[in-house]
Amino acid sequence: MRVRYAETDQMGVVYHTHYLVWCEVGRTDYIREWAMPYARLEQEGCVLAVAEVNIRYLAAARYDDLVHVTTWIERVQSRAITFGYSLASERDCTQQRIATATIKLIALDGAGAPRTLPDHLLRRFREEVDTNTN
Amino acid sequence: MRVRYAETDQMGVVYHTHYLVWCEVGRTDYIREWAMPYARLEQEGCVLAVAEVNIRYLAAARYDDLVHVTTWIERVQSRAITFGYSLASERDCTQQRIATATIKLIALDGAGAPRTLPDHLLRRFREEVDTNTN
Amino acid sequence: MRVRYAETDQMGVVYHTHYLVWCEVGRTDYIREWAMPYARLEQEGCVLAVAEVNIRYLAAARYDDLVHVTTWIERVQSRAITFGYSLASERDCTQQRIATATIKLIALDGAGAPRTLPDHLLRRFREEVDTNTN
Amino acid sequence: MRVRYAETDQMGVVYHTHYLVWCEVGRTDYIREWAMPYARLEQEGCVLAVAEVNIRYLAAARYDDLVHVTTWIERVQSRAITFGYSLASERDCTQQRIATATIKLIALDGAGAPRTLPDHLLRRFREEVDTNTN
Repeated sequence: MRVRYAETDQMGVVYHTHYLVWCEVGRTDYIREWAMPYARLEQEGCVLAVAEVNIRYLAAARYDDLVHVTTWIERVQSRAITFGYSLASERDCTQQRIATATIKLIALDGAGAPRTLPDHLLRRFREEVDTNTN
Repeated sequence: MRVRYAETDQMGVVYHTHYLVWCEVGRTDYIREWAMPYARLEQEGCVLAVAEVNIRYLAAARYDDLVHVTTWIERVQSRAITFGYSLASERDCTQQRIATATIKLIALDGAGAPRTLPDHLLRRFREEVDTNTN
Repeated sequence: MRVRYAETDQMGVVYHTHYLVWCEVGRTDYIREWAMPYARLEQEGCVLAVAEVNIRYLAAARYDDLVHVTTWIERVQSRAITFGYSLASERDCTQQRIATATIKLIALDGAGAPRTLPDHLLRRFREEVDTNTN
Repeated sequence: MRVRYAETDQMGVVYHTHYLVWCEVGRTDYIREWAMPYARLEQEGCVLAVAEVNIRYLAAARYDDLVHVTTWIERVQSRAITFGYSLASERDCTQQRIATATIKLIALDGAGAPRTLPDHLLRRFREEVDTNTN
């Protein structure tokens, strides 16, 4: 995805919270590819709310850079899932790592109360983690 | 309201769409003061959706400036209301006009279909316009 | 471009100012394709600042929709250029027009003073308008 | 500070990255009150760039809530400073804690290279930490 002018700040670099929006785009694409669109998950009465964010900034992204987000599942619990991210920016064909992050999401029902993740999703998430660690 | 770092872009000035967010803060304060909190209006099944925006930028706002929004009602229709705005920024005790705008809002019900504005609101909006033009 | 979760508001639709960010992405792609990256223009000491925005909202875009932006040049002046935009969103393979807009940009030098557009750009912009109107 | 409509998402609550923007507003006010405006610090050739963010979300903030940010200095190093934050939202006169966070900032010079914090700032930051821990 290409860095938008709206995402820069007066330091001439990307304002730090936009990295987290990119993580979300990465996560959404990731879930869509091997499971289901996140929009459908919400229609099933399960929203994933951000419970914890840890991010380390390594270098600055700049306007018009291409940003690449690598997303993986770090940990699965019955009511929560933690994603890991590695962000890189590309400029003149050279890539640079700009951040690493983990974001923990908890499952909520329509009323905002904690619930367990839908079984089919839980099963797929766990398979995914097993595949990655073997 | 003070300009936030997050609102600047790499030109060193405020990114243009934030002026419209400030207009909304001005409008919300305006409605709250003489009528009712906008949040309650939504609970009554009436949302005001932005239908048209016209804004002219006169000067740049900068980080840490104080922004003043003057809001008035420009026109009232049974299903729509148009607000007028004048924005000024203050720095070192001197004020400068930075933009003028009009934003037309249409009333929608919970399902997103056009509806007329609640009577009590319509009456108050019209009184307000009469007061301003006399 | 796909609608991001961060771009929605509590009405369940996209918050109105993001349409203008998409217009900018459309404009940037447009300039890149037939002329030069906008980033290089800034390095040449010419920034394009938004001077006027007019946008009419026709329908709501929603999370996960695909947004298509059509960009064209509406008018060229020696110190200003006005772009026209048509925005459509796509969901389940049907497209819907969601907004039309015009955005006028003025050319500024590094110090923020008005200047004329670089000759090579002015020439290309004008050719483009002629092509469109013939 | 009052929650803006632009800050909500389609879950009907505030989108998570805005909490970090509020932290920044809290930090800016904090530095302004007992030391100097951050804008002046940047003019002196010292920018504070976000190097690490850790935030835990405890409850959701909603549109029109009043948000209170408590800011303190968690740790001072010669080239970095870590702020701690506690965020609460207020609605109908009852307050609720909505998040706790730490944000580590590193000092950069105009060219983006790491530098030590200006002496006068370092001294004041350290006094502040001593006062808090005694």
